[in-house]
Amino acid sequence: MRSVAIIGVGSTPFGKLEGRSLVDIAVAACREALADAGIHREKIQALYIGNFIGERLVGQGALAGVVANRLGMSGIPATKTEGACASGGIALRLGVLGIALGLYDLVLVAGAEKMTSASTAEVTAGLATAGDEEAEMRSGLTFPGAFAIITREHMARHGTTREQVGLVSVKNHGLGAANPKAQFRKPVRLDDVLTSRLIADPLRLFDCPPISDGAAAAVLCPADWARDLHRQPVRVLGTGHATGPATLWEMDDITTFPASVRAAQEAYAMAGITPSDIDAAEVHDCFTTAEIVATEDLGFFARGKGGHAVAEGWSAPDGKVAVNPSGGLIAKGHPVGATGCAQVYELVRQLRGEAANQVRNCEFALAHNLGGTGVVSTVTILGRL
Amino acid sequence: MRSVAIIGVGSTPFGKLEGRSLVDIAVAACREALADAGIHREKIQALYIGNFIGERLVGQGALAGVVANRLGMSGIPATKTEGACASGGIALRLGVLGIALGLYDLVLVAGAEKMTSASTAEVTAGLATAGDEEAEMRSGLTFPGAFAIITREHMARHGTTREQVGLVSVKNHGLGAANPKAQFRKPVRLDDVLTSRLIADPLRLFDCPPISDGAAAAVLCPADWARDLHRQPVRVLGTGHATGPATLWEMDDITTFPASVRAAQEAYAMAGITPSDIDAAEVHDCFTTAEIVATEDLGFFARGKGGHAVAEGWSAPDGKVAVNPSGGLIAKGHPVGATGCAQVYELVRQLRGEAANQVRNCEFALAHNLGGTGVVSTVTILGRL
Repeated sequence: MRSVAIIGVGSTPFGKLEGRSLVDIAVAACREALADAGIHREKIQALYIGNFIGERLVGQGALAGVVANRLGMSGIPATKTEGACASGGIALRLGVLGIALGLYDLVLVAGAEKMTSASTAEVTAGLATAGDEEAEMRSGLTFPGAFAIITREHMARHGTTREQVGLVSVKNHGLGAANPKAQFRKPVRLDDVLTSRLIADPLRLFDCPPISDGAAAAVLCPADWARDLHRQPVRVLGTGHATGPATLWEMDDITTFPASVRAAQEAYAMAGITPSDIDAAEVHDCFTTAEIVATEDLGFFARGKGGHAVAEGWSAPDGKVAVNPSGGLIAKGHPVGATGCAQVYELVRQLRGEAANQVRNCEFALAHNLGGTGVVSTVTILGRL
Repeated sequence: MRSVAIIGVGSTPFGKLEGRSLVDIAVAACREALADAGIHREKIQALYIGNFIGERLVGQGALAGVVANRLGMSGIPATKTEGACASGGIALRLGVLGIALGLYDLVLVAGAEKMTSASTAEVTAGLATAGDEEAEMRSGLTFPGAFAIITREHMARHGTTREQVGLVSVKNHGLGAANPKAQFRKPVRLDDVLTSRLIADPLRLFDCPPISDGAAAAVLCPADWARDLHRQPVRVLGTGHATGPATLWEMDDITTFPASVRAAQEAYAMAGITPSDIDAAEVHDCFTTAEIVATEDLGFFARGKGGHAVAEGWSAPDGKVAVNPSGGLIAKGHPVGATGCAQVYELVRQLRGEAANQVRNCEFALAHNLGGTGVVSTVTILGRL
């Protein structure tokens, strides 16, 4: 396999992007990534785009072809991937493999979602399609509900406290405050989290990500071309993609997602590094608890110690590993299909030394994207070239 | 690149599959393909599945992970592709490339759609998401409407007659009558077509495919393994994937789809054969006119002569090239995401000599899948191994 580099990234701001369609924001992120890479659109040989529920929320399917056409790239093979909240991570992985395996030399990867134009009820029902409808979600379970159950189990099994869970929100909102692309730009105190509106006991409003619009994109090429094309290329060191149980009731232990563990193992093995080498990680904190679970599944902290770790500051920017320096899904926002690519946008900027909450001496970075309650996960490891 | 073979295919019947969910039918087609290949599910290294609007019509997203889990393959990387009606063809292409480029040795590819549980209005609105919502479909255009405009233009520009267009329906319903998997099993006369209910002038009910449930699947491996695994493996000789304009108003000539032309050129070049070598073709007859356009875009007949060709019997099973021997989308049915894989199901059986409407001495076969009004297309060329 050829070594792959990222030579350009782009992202819209995340939030309520009034008057801008799903296609508009995908195109904007792609143009920013192409400009950052200094690559003309006509040089791009393939497009992969992650999107979850454009057909349902905004009436737009076939997004890859529509975006290719709007970008003036009509002709090239364009592929939309969907794996719920991991849609963007899957698109990125296909782009990386396309270059690694020698199929293409210049690939554009993007993720996008437009959610704020739909009602909260429509969004909640749409997000619930990430579960196994027939085998679990038909019961009326929602994703806040599922992660509330997981939170209770993490507390019961590992002694995690409600306060530790809330500290994820405090950390991430604090980081989001400094990120100009973030949806929420205001720090919150632990007391704010613990007294915010109850959503699904014990999860409260500030344990949850907002409903967001947003898109992010990256331009990929073979690593041995990268130095000639960009002053600060980033190398893709490893990639992993795995599936897991689609329902909670099939899992032996609902405080760990086998798909994350397997995808991470694959990515670490390919990169030839270990969790302790990672300086910055964007992990899938679709709820506060999900960050705690992710930091354990990715091997940053011992099983059951994710709550303790955040309380000790181990996941702060100056801790053992900076977790979600962008503010994560909780503060930066979670336009579902965009998230996997937005994580890479942040980490490329970290590795270049350009991030809003810059992690010192950032050499190795990891992006972790999760779909549903662990039905699919991708992990990507990046390093300086 | 390694040469790729298909060693197993499966398909549910197409039609109204009462009481069977989207996941159920995808799993059934996959199991049939695995059984045909004689491969245990644990040997499969990756799953690609095409589906268009499961999130919208039946509340089921993240289909690849959910199906992998239900099949007992939880763990493997599973990817859902969506490119409207070409979703299945894109999944197939990714599976072929995964083996061709040496990433995997045994891959399962599937396509599935469950449509009959939704209302006709929901289906029509859902299908319309295959167009560019903002730039064209917001006008109220539907797909029958778009293909009616294309039909009128084909008649005006090329002298195609309403009768010639109707003869596609007569041919395909006649072939579907013999296909046990087809939704419509009754021949129709030209007069039946021309007096059937007007849908979008000049297209009538029998010019349109039905609303269908169905799934199809295939097992792929390197060609040099195939002889040891199946008595009659089929070789994938070529694959093409291209995009085109997303709206009618951007096209210089709406009687040809540049995406089909480009995907076909790519596939023919890879296979090292020409259109006249093709013995059987499953083409994307989402409307009668679409078959006429496809037979021209694929190079079977001269530009503008597709209507003449069907009237002359050149696309009949004993003609120059047997077009849609399965009955095509019009008679076999069109569960959107399944179609690209169902075409390959039919062609593998043609190449093995097992088809319901067997084409004599079938050596080379072509599958053509189209999304929207040509926003994306895939072409796959198969031959005997």
